[in-house]
Amino acid sequence: MKKLNKNFNLLADDYLFAKVSAAVEKYKADFPQSDIISLGVGDATQPLVGKVIKACNDAAFEMSTDKFFRGYGPYDGYPFLKQAIVDYYKRRGVVIDIDDVFVTDGAKNGVGNLLDIFDSDVSVMIPDPVYPAYVDANVMAGHKIVYVEGNRGNGFLPMPSKKIKADLIYICSPNNPTGAAYTVDQLKEWVKFALDTDAIIIYDAAYEAFAEEKNIARSIYQVNGARDCAIEICSLSKIAGFTGVRCGWTVIPGGNLTNVNRMWYKRQSIKSNGTGYIVQRMAEAALKGGYDEVVKSLGVYKSNAKLITDKFKKLGMEFTGGVNSPYIWFYTGVDSWEFFDYLLKKAKIVCTPGSGFGKNCNGWIRITAFNTPARTAEAIKRFEMFWKDFIEVRGSIFKPLKK
Amino acid sequence: MKKLNKNFNLLADDYLFAKVSAAVEKYKADFPQSDIISLGVGDATQPLVGKVIKACNDAAFEMSTDKFFRGYGPYDGYPFLKQAIVDYYKRRGVVIDIDDVFVTDGAKNGVGNLLDIFDSDVSVMIPDPVYPAYVDANVMAGHKIVYVEGNRGNGFLPMPSKKIKADLIYICSPNNPTGAAYTVDQLKEWVKFALDTDAIIIYDAAYEAFAEEKNIARSIYQVNGARDCAIEICSLSKIAGFTGVRCGWTVIPGGNLTNVNRMWYKRQSIKSNGTGYIVQRMAEAALKGGYDEVVKSLGVYKSNAKLITDKFKKLGMEFTGGVNSPYIWFYTGVDSWEFFDYLLKKAKIVCTPGSGFGKNCNGWIRITAFNTPARTAEAIKRFEMFWKDFIEVRGSIFKPLKK
Repeated sequence: MKKLNKNFNLLADDYLFAKVSAAVEKYKADFPQSDIISLGVGDATQPLVGKVIKACNDAAFEMSTDKFFRGYGPYDGYPFLKQAIVDYYKRRGVVIDIDDVFVTDGAKNGVGNLLDIFDSDVSVMIPDPVYPAYVDANVMAGHKIVYVEGNRGNGFLPMPSKKIKADLIYICSPNNPTGAAYTVDQLKEWVKFALDTDAIIIYDAAYEAFAEEKNIARSIYQVNGARDCAIEICSLSKIAGFTGVRCGWTVIPGGNLTNVNRMWYKRQSIKSNGTGYIVQRMAEAALKGGYDEVVKSLGVYKSNAKLITDKFKKLGMEFTGGVNSPYIWFYTGVDSWEFFDYLLKKAKIVCTPGSGFGKNCNGWIRITAFNTPARTAEAIKRFEMFWKDFIEVRGSIFKPLKK
Repeated sequence: MKKLNKNFNLLADDYLFAKVSAAVEKYKADFPQSDIISLGVGDATQPLVGKVIKACNDAAFEMSTDKFFRGYGPYDGYPFLKQAIVDYYKRRGVVIDIDDVFVTDGAKNGVGNLLDIFDSDVSVMIPDPVYPAYVDANVMAGHKIVYVEGNRGNGFLPMPSKKIKADLIYICSPNNPTGAAYTVDQLKEWVKFALDTDAIIIYDAAYEAFAEEKNIARSIYQVNGARDCAIEICSLSKIAGFTGVRCGWTVIPGGNLTNVNRMWYKRQSIKSNGTGYIVQRMAEAALKGGYDEVVKSLGVYKSNAKLITDKFKKLGMEFTGGVNSPYIWFYTGVDSWEFFDYLLKKAKIVCTPGSGFGKNCNGWIRITAFNTPARTAEAIKRFEMFWKDFIEVRGSIFKPLKK
């Protein structure tokens, strides 16, 4: 077969988390007795809340009856869930219309599949560091990628510059992997820039539920004008522990973007049959009747994040995130993958090498607050001892990185 | 925004079923008291079987506990479901390997998303008539499409010809919309042709569970050599009524197609986070513990199909399908959309205009056996009266079509 997509040859060898996972599996095979704690992948560990389980059972019961059985649903999601999403925004003072909302099988599907509606010669602006799926999906499509650099200087929150333009602009806030989060005022500058340059912003709000501080944006639609230039992608994964359930949404407002909205509907009608009914009822429960439970469950991760950042402060470490975000991003001064191996070997803790998120991030490490309180506490205890030892031996056994 | 995918302008105005649905909604709004029976979309109506519901509740219970909660699953599906799929093939004497199998959110997602792994200048061969999503997904991608014609002469089962070549060959058997189904011997010719021309077959087996007659293929892998040139796509939608649950699979065998298998894995790891855990447990139950119930449920649709074809024979109509297939494809001699309107108006029956499936199918109509036995019986009663009247008035109120 000669006609395979050659862009695949340009992809990094392995998707970052697959690579981490393979390294951990190898370690487990070599040392089967090891008590490994993962602070690696940002994956929920708190069980689904009671009202979500009840919604699942109720919907399953419907599906077992002649009268209430449901086959194919709407390509863009059932109105009951679309309305629950509209109301979820409304509770935070953001107005979106029910026709703006598309239910999806998760934010990752949304981010990737959305590219179908753009031309093959579209150019994209991607922050560096960033969630690797943005880059990989665009490399796969052969798109021209320009990077805007997040770094110490800008607190990993790059701002628009007249020097760099693109047709699509990816923004992830609160950010994965750095945990940094834009204020509404900062997003105003991005919206203005997008409108001035006729670009579309793809705003990944997957971690918005962690935004706590005043002025930190939870939706790009808090900014006037965003409805004319921004697509927002979100997910129940981090709001309600749906990483293993798979449900999210995409918002493409009417108005200036009406034709984009209609193209996405068409794309979904051709390449998908919507999201399952039972899953949509579970998502509805998470945003409505079960929302108080969901918030309580989220509080567990927020406490974990505080536990970690308190310790990091005590250890005098350089880090971002942990507030407004389940991610903590810290600097080690040594090669990220070497640190990963050393942390796994010495403390049996899995982290994610920062170098996997961007070309200028060697030396940085991402850890997450998604483990259980008990395991997180245990990990922090181990980490404290580990870090003190690491600081002592760093100069002698690791090659230093230029800061 | 200038850089939108221009290929969307080449798409048919509306996805066929969306168009049918809009016409029916309009009719309902005009005549709210009408008792409309749908023999239109091929959508399950039988409730999910008991063992599938039990699997749903059991998995939901797991997700409610600290101990058994599951977050992100494997990109290619859980081994328990992949093994159940391998065993499902094995029971029919077809050997596939567990690494050949990818769990998906349904056959439609598989068919559409698979195009990501091929080059943008790939050419595709599509039978006409055919399930419209193949054509639309390829138009969207800007691919060159060549058609092989299904018609009266070949029983709507086109065979390869040296005159027409392409990089990808779509085959759907048992066929949607015509209900015609290839024998294993006929597929041998297609496999030989694909191997000779270095093409890949995308074999849509979504309706394989309806194949009953001896020698009718249920999988392309019943043919030697198919492992080196064919991708098979299947779904639980029609096997077990999963149209509203969303679960299917893609088989890409190792061997000659190993690199294609690995590219699909990479595509899925970048643009998806797999299929939900609860859904995968439901699918496992459908193929294993609940399979006897599933077969019984399928029998309902098979009886419906027999009811319809018996009546059509009695009425002396020209049709294919109804055996080995839930679809019956019949000739009316008048414009398909005019027949659709007339059938809806006179008998309150929804069908699908054959012209929506292919450029040479005007005059043909697809109906399905997916309604309940009671509604199907009622529809057939109405249809008999309708058809007798239609034959009488056809010459006077419809413009005849050239046969």
